[in-house]
Amino acid sequence: MTQIDHLGIAVKSLAEARKFYEKLGLKVTPEETVEAEKVRLAMVPVGESRIELLEPTSPDSTIAKFLEKRGEGLHSVALHVSDLAATVERLKASGTRLISNEIKVGAGGHRYVFVHPSSAGGVLLELVGDESPGA
Amino acid sequence: MTQIDHLGIAVKSLAEARKFYEKLGLKVTPEETVEAEKVRLAMVPVGESRIELLEPTSPDSTIAKFLEKRGEGLHSVALHVSDLAATVERLKASGTRLISNEIKVGAGGHRYVFVHPSSAGGVLLELVGDESPGA
Repeated sequence: MTQIDHLGIAVKSLAEARKFYEKLGLKVTPEETVEAEKVRLAMVPVGESRIELLEPTSPDSTIAKFLEKRGEGLHSVALHVSDLAATVERLKASGTRLISNEIKVGAGGHRYVFVHPSSAGGVLLELVGDESPGA
Repeated sequence: MTQIDHLGIAVKSLAEARKFYEKLGLKVTPEETVEAEKVRLAMVPVGESRIELLEPTSPDSTIAKFLEKRGEGLHSVALHVSDLAATVERLKASGTRLISNEIKVGAGGHRYVFVHPSSAGGVLLELVGDESPGA
């Protein structure tokens, strides 16, 4: 089944963003740092989805560049799809522009692909599959 | 329970956007026009949430202005909250900037409030409550 896995929101200050979501009555997880992506993040579980608040740890990170160009706001949408490999083949066959042509494996073993915003109505769209069998 | 009610995505062409989401294997509803907001929209149900694809019907609509300024992309996030009135009071008491200070009632009787992006990490955040008792 397809569902919204998470929304990525680029913020200048995790501390400020945390306060806002807590005022909404939501729980925010403790911060963690993802060195590979040069971000510090905290998650806000929302029903079957979650919001990821992303603060850059370095000026050369993707999120720092996004903040510089567009300011704070929605950075990406991740959809969980049940048949990631088949979906990716279907998109490739129809000329959809992907950011990388292979499925990658992230921390925790989840498999993912990014669709370029030019092919997805201006949205940086991540497609997330189930964990890889060997992970 | 809080959940993501919908994501609003501003697009230049509903027809193009529809094709993309159908390639993902998702169903897209027939188009409908909301005269009051000068948009044509189609919905993509995704788990407990939905994506709303929004195409302007007039150059002076909110969505047309968004497209002109930022191009296609994520326009807004709507969260369903179970206690909208209490949440709004809590936000007001803490100085959160709302786009209107009263809860409004939309088509279909749902109640909603927009939080200004300056108070919500750059996100145009709609809070949606249950249908009003009298609707």
